[in-house]
Formats: sequence, C-alpha cells, structure tokens
Amino acid sequence: MSNPALPVPGFDAAGVHCGVKPTGALDLALIGSRIPARAAAIFTHNAFPAAPVLYDRALLQLNPEGVHGVFINSGNANACTGVQGRANARRMAEAAEQALGATDNTVFIMSTGVIGVQLPIEKVEAGASAVAARLRPDGWEEAAEAIMTTDAHPKWASRQVEIGGATVTITGIAKGAGMIHPNMATMLAVLATDAAVTQPVLQQALVDAAGRSFNRISIDGDTSTNDTVLVLANGLAGNPEITSVEDPAYPALVAGLEAVSVELAKAIVRNGEGVTKFVTVMVEGAVNHEEAHQAANAIATSPLVKTAFYGGDANWGRILCAVGYSGATVEPERAQLFIAAGEPDAHTIWLQLVEAGTPTDYAEADASAIFAAADISVRVELGLGPGRATVWTCDLSHEYVTINGEYRT
Amino acid sequence: MSNPALPVPGFDAAGVHCGVKPTGALDLALIGSRIPARAAAIFTHNAFPAAPVLYDRALLQLNPEGVHGVFINSGNANACTGVQGRANARRMAEAAEQALGATDNTVFIMSTGVIGVQLPIEKVEAGASAVAARLRPDGWEEAAEAIMTTDAHPKWASRQVEIGGATVTITGIAKGAGMIHPNMATMLAVLATDAAVTQPVLQQALVDAAGRSFNRISIDGDTSTNDTVLVLANGLAGNPEITSVEDPAYPALVAGLEAVSVELAKAIVRNGEGVTKFVTVMVEGAVNHEEAHQAANAIATSPLVKTAFYGGDANWGRILCAVGYSGATVEPERAQLFIAAGEPDAHTIWLQLVEAGTPTDYAEADASAIFAAADISVRVELGLGPGRATVWTCDLSHEYVTINGEYRT
Repeated sequence: MSNPALPVPGFDAAGVHCGVKPTGALDLALIGSRIPARAAAIFTHNAFPAAPVLYDRALLQLNPEGVHGVFINSGNANACTGVQGRANARRMAEAAEQALGATDNTVFIMSTGVIGVQLPIEKVEAGASAVAARLRPDGWEEAAEAIMTTDAHPKWASRQVEIGGATVTITGIAKGAGMIHPNMATMLAVLATDAAVTQPVLQQALVDAAGRSFNRISIDGDTSTNDTVLVLANGLAGNPEITSVEDPAYPALVAGLEAVSVELAKAIVRNGEGVTKFVTVMVEGAVNHEEAHQAANAIATSPLVKTAFYGGDANWGRILCAVGYSGATVEPERAQLFIAAGEPDAHTIWLQLVEAGTPTDYAEADASAIFAAADISVRVELGLGPGRATVWTCDLSHEYVTINGEYRT
Repeated sequence: MSNPALPVPGFDAAGVHCGVKPTGALDLALIGSRIPARAAAIFTHNAFPAAPVLYDRALLQLNPEGVHGVFINSGNANACTGVQGRANARRMAEAAEQALGATDNTVFIMSTGVIGVQLPIEKVEAGASAVAARLRPDGWEEAAEAIMTTDAHPKWASRQVEIGGATVTITGIAKGAGMIHPNMATMLAVLATDAAVTQPVLQQALVDAAGRSFNRISIDGDTSTNDTVLVLANGLAGNPEITSVEDPAYPALVAGLEAVSVELAKAIVRNGEGVTKFVTVMVEGAVNHEEAHQAANAIATSPLVKTAFYGGDANWGRILCAVGYSGATVEPERAQLFIAAGEPDAHTIWLQLVEAGTPTDYAEADASAIFAAADISVRVELGLGPGRATVWTCDLSHEYVTINGEYRT
C-alpha cells in the first residue's frame, strides 16, 4: 500500500508467527483497545458458518459496548470443525482476554485458511501472550501481514475526517485470497476508529459503508464460511457523540468508513493471486438498483467473460450473454455496451461497441487496445430505468488455476 | 463415440464446409426428413436470444407438424446482430427449404459460434444446395462434426426401443464448447426419431428427457443466447401413435429420448476443451428436489471446487462452502460428505469425509487417490428430506483458460 497505516488513538496492533502456518510466516494478529470500545459487525450468510463466526455472532448480541479487541489467526479457518471447533474458538477468545488482561466476553475472534482441519489451539494459545507483548500503536501493517493467506500483499488503509471540530481517524486491515470472486473464499476486515458514536449507529454506518465497498465485490448470498467485517469505536476523538443516523455528522462518519472500505475492497481484488487485470463493471438504466447489481455480478463472475479479459480478447458477446442470463429485465433493442481503459472517471473516453442490441462500426484495433490494458472498464446501459450498480472484479488467469489447484499441497 | 450413429428411417443428414469457419473445417449441417415430421423444441431463456432462436420459436408456434428439416451453421452464432441478423436467419431457412424442395416454414435453423458478428449469409446460402446434395441416411456423424465449435470430438448417440411391437430408432447429435458449464456457451442438440407420436406428447417427452439430461449440466436460467434442443418425429416406425402421456408406451419413448440425451449431455462435459476430469455431483436428503439441484449446481460451478478437482487436491471444505452459499436449507450437524473414484453405480465404495458436519478420521492418502482419478464422484447428504439431484460437471484447467482467453484470436 502506498500510504502508511495511521495509528488510531487508544488502539494497538501486532502480528507474530505461532506455528499454524508451516511456512514460518506471520499467522497471528491482535488488535487491542485500551479502553472499552463499541463494536459492530457483519457476518457471512453461509449455512456452514465457521466456529469463530458463531462465537462472534453471540458476542455481538452480548457485549457490543465493552470490547477490548479482536484476535485473528490465518492458515486455518476453523470451519466445518464441529463441537471441537466451537470449543477451540472459545479457548482462542479466552487466551486473548487473558493476554490483554481483559474481562470475559470482550474479545472477538476470526480465523482464515483451510476448511475442515481442527485448529492447533495450543499454538494459538501460546501465541496470544507473545502477540500481546508486541502490541503498539503502529503495529497495523504487521497485523495486516499476519492475516494473509494467499494474498499477494498485506492490505491496510486509513482516513481522517472532521466531525464536530474533532479529527476522527479510521484505520482498517483486510485479507482476501487467491480467487476470482472474493466472497467465495474468506474475506476478513477489521476497522478501528476513535469516533464517538453509539453502537446502533455504528452498526448502521458499517452496513452502509460495506454496501458500497465489500459488497461491491461479492454476490449477495454467495459468501464463504468465515467472511466477517468488524468495526471498533472507542470515542477518544472527543467529537460530540453521534446518536442517530439523522445527525448531521453521520454522513462524514460513513464517508470515512466507506473510503477505507473501498480502498481495502479494491486492494482485495487487485492483490488476489493470479490477478492480472482489474475490471470495473458498471450497469446503468436497469429497472432498479437490485437488477443492476444482479447483471453486474453476472458479468463479474462469468468464467467466459473473465478468461476473455485475461486473454485480451474483446469478445464482448459474452458480456451481453451474461446480462441476458442474469435475470435482470432486458429489452435487446435498448441495450448499449461501452468499454474503456483505466478506472472510470469524468474524463473517461468510452468506446461504444453495441447500440440498440447491434454491433456498432467500431474498429477492432481500438477494442483490442482497451482489452489489452491492465485496468478495464465495462459499462452496460439497459435503457429501462434508474437502476445502477458498480462491481469490481478481475480476470481468470492461468495463475489462478495453478494457485487454487494446489492450495493445500 | 464408441458406437456408430444409427440411421433413422426417413431421415438424412450431411455436413459440408461453406466458408463461415476460416479454418476450412465443416461448418454447415443439414438434417432432412423425407416426409413431413412433427417437431418439438426447448429454447434458451437468455434475454438476448439469437436470431435463429427467435425464428424457431415463431416456427414452433406455426408449424410443428409439417417439418422437413433443420439447417445448422457453426462458426457464427448470429446473436446480438439486430434487424440484419433476423433477416439473415430468414434467408438461411429459405435457402434450406429451397435446397430440400420443401414448402415455406418447414425448416428450423440453428447457429453457433462467436456472438456479435453478422452471419456471412451468402456463404450459407451457397452451401445449402451443396449440403442437400450430400444428404444420406448415414450422414449423422458428418453432421455432428459440422456443428462443432471448440468441442474436442463430434458427439452423436443412438438407441432403439420397442413400442407396441415396433422398433423405434432415436438418433441425436449435439455440440457443447470449450467451457466450464455447458449452458454458458452455445449448446445445440437435434434428435430424430421414427416414432409415431402427437406433437403435444412429443413436446412433453422432450421436456421430461431434457430435465434428466441436458438440464443436469446446466443452471436454471443460466443459459446462452443460442441454446436449442429440437426433436423431429416422422412416425415411420409404425407403432400405434402415442396420443397421451398416460399411454402405456409413453415411458418407453421418454426412456429412449432420455438415454440418447444423457449420452450426449455427458459427452458435452467430457469433450469440452480443457476438461481433464469428469465429475458426478449428487446431493441427497435436501428439503426438496429443487434445493438439491440448487446445491449440486453451486458445487458444480464453483471455480474453487473445480480448480481443486483439476489439481487433485482433496480440499473438500470448498464443496461444503458451496452448498452453504447455494441457498439450499442446511443443518450443519446433519451434513455428510462422501467421495469416490469413477462414475457412481451400485458397487461404488464411498469414502466418508464428513459426518455430522465434522471431518471423519479418513486417511488423506485415500482422499488424494480419489481426487487423482479421471472420474470423480461427490455425494452430499443433507439429512433433511427426500430431495435429490445429480449434476455432471468437469474441472477448471489451465487449458480452459488458454482456449477461452484466445477464443477469437
């Protein structure tokens, strides 16, 4: 990441190697809050939730206002591990509480890695005091490294926003994986902020921010066993507490959380192993936003579309084909298709490939040049209504197949 | 294919090269019925249907009892081609009617290949008389070759069934493509039979047979711009005409159509380019058949599952993860997972990997040996109800990426 992670007053972070990963890489991260913090979280909807997700869901019901941290291991997802997995999740949380000198039910846990193998809990327990001993305000980048699995690089992001005359800091870390569609493997993110905000408002702010960031790189319902996004807020910034979504300061908080989340979400796509291209998919003119998202996701997840991006082949028929089976309402004679190199902005020059469902007289060389770019944008105009959505995705490469064909071996 | 295609009394077939494919390979097929035949068909639900699909849908409304054949080109899908594409589809049908000496509105058409390029209609028109001149009872294998795109081999299948003392013959040809999931590119199939059967009963028999064959290799709604399955029946077998689905002879007809369709459907999976493994996915104990199909399709289409098959890595957590996000009802503590080498039959020895949502004490070497096999079977038992479904799929290989990244280049 180009910018350093900003320390957040009252928070410390660290990462160590405890032995879950056979490679010797960092595999244990701890984020600690020196004073009790408020917590909000979003979890996977997968019907086989991992043990840490079950644990955290219960904790979120119990104690969202007196939280002292989150303890994360990589290399093992503690998913599909049954009764023993749930017992290990509890032991993991207790080990962190002990290492932090915190009371019961004050630490969240997360796990990421292979599914269906029991967590080596003794190693995790032994690592808890080691990682606690390394806690420091500028330990975020180390913590980000410790939660990686097959990610190409550690991922962190920071923003500062002004709220009621106070400077509020937000720092986040995330992990994706070597995969096509982030939600299909374990995506984890932790955000920490010194904003003063009530727990229900913090939860709504996280939902709003995730809806325009982490959920832009995922299909609704198409989530892994472990996906979790957690935010902790300790109030040390001293801003007037935000107690309602009607509060004039609420949009600034959401904007800050969203900016950090978007940066992390895009980094998850860009740094996925085997990714050679970053693709922005925009669908506009759909009957409603939901159908726009549906169509954009169909494009973003089609193996035929993704291999065409990889090969630099402007085989755009596959894009309209994906829209056609997405379930979104379509009138072919209204459909338009545009492509451009780079991430879209106000200056983007779009090449129109389809007008009224029929190919335009575009020059093949122009289309090929765009598909050869490292960043590609696709825009579909359905001409039916106000629905719009943007999804970020990547190509499907030889490297992807190699990495995921040999993930455990 | 191991067995030759059986001639069907009254039908002729042939294939030629007319110039749509730049390689010089066969690209034009004609199936002719010497007497008027009854027709039934199933079409894609894609919202961007190709011009031939629009044409055939109208023809099926108009004239399902006086049909003289089907005319098929490969190398160009005539999809997303607008007004000109529809005009070319009509010209294509007329060229075949003329070549067959048939009256108007008696020939179906199909196209397969690249989307969004206008069909070189003059070449197709010029080829019509050439292919008609080659028509012969044993031309099926040549016709099967002429409808290929990136298929590894031509695909045909035949069966004979006894109906009311008469021997009824059914022969079919099909094309899939170099893709993961057949329904995501153009799947075409033509079946011909000398059975005597009314048109509505023929339509129902085709729906029944496709539901247990071609639809077992596809997601509902996840269909391409061109997918079409057509059956022609000319009644020359002399069996007592089947006029109702309650007719005792109806099951024999369906069984024959289904056997041919299953053989073609499996061949589409096996002969897809880039396929190194054939995988049978069975889900049992689901709340109902629909949810079983949903779960099986999620497994069959997950890139993470498919790359694990390719790599021979028994990373079964990805299988349960896919079931977990499929939308099917799951109670983790009831879930069981089994794998086996080969296609499943009564003698299959299953290795149980998961019991009550938790890994069993299986030997890793046993699981690896099964995942290393060319044919792999996966069985998920949800323990909730009578729902069951089988889906046939393949792995996701380096070769798949190569072929589909460079499809047009």
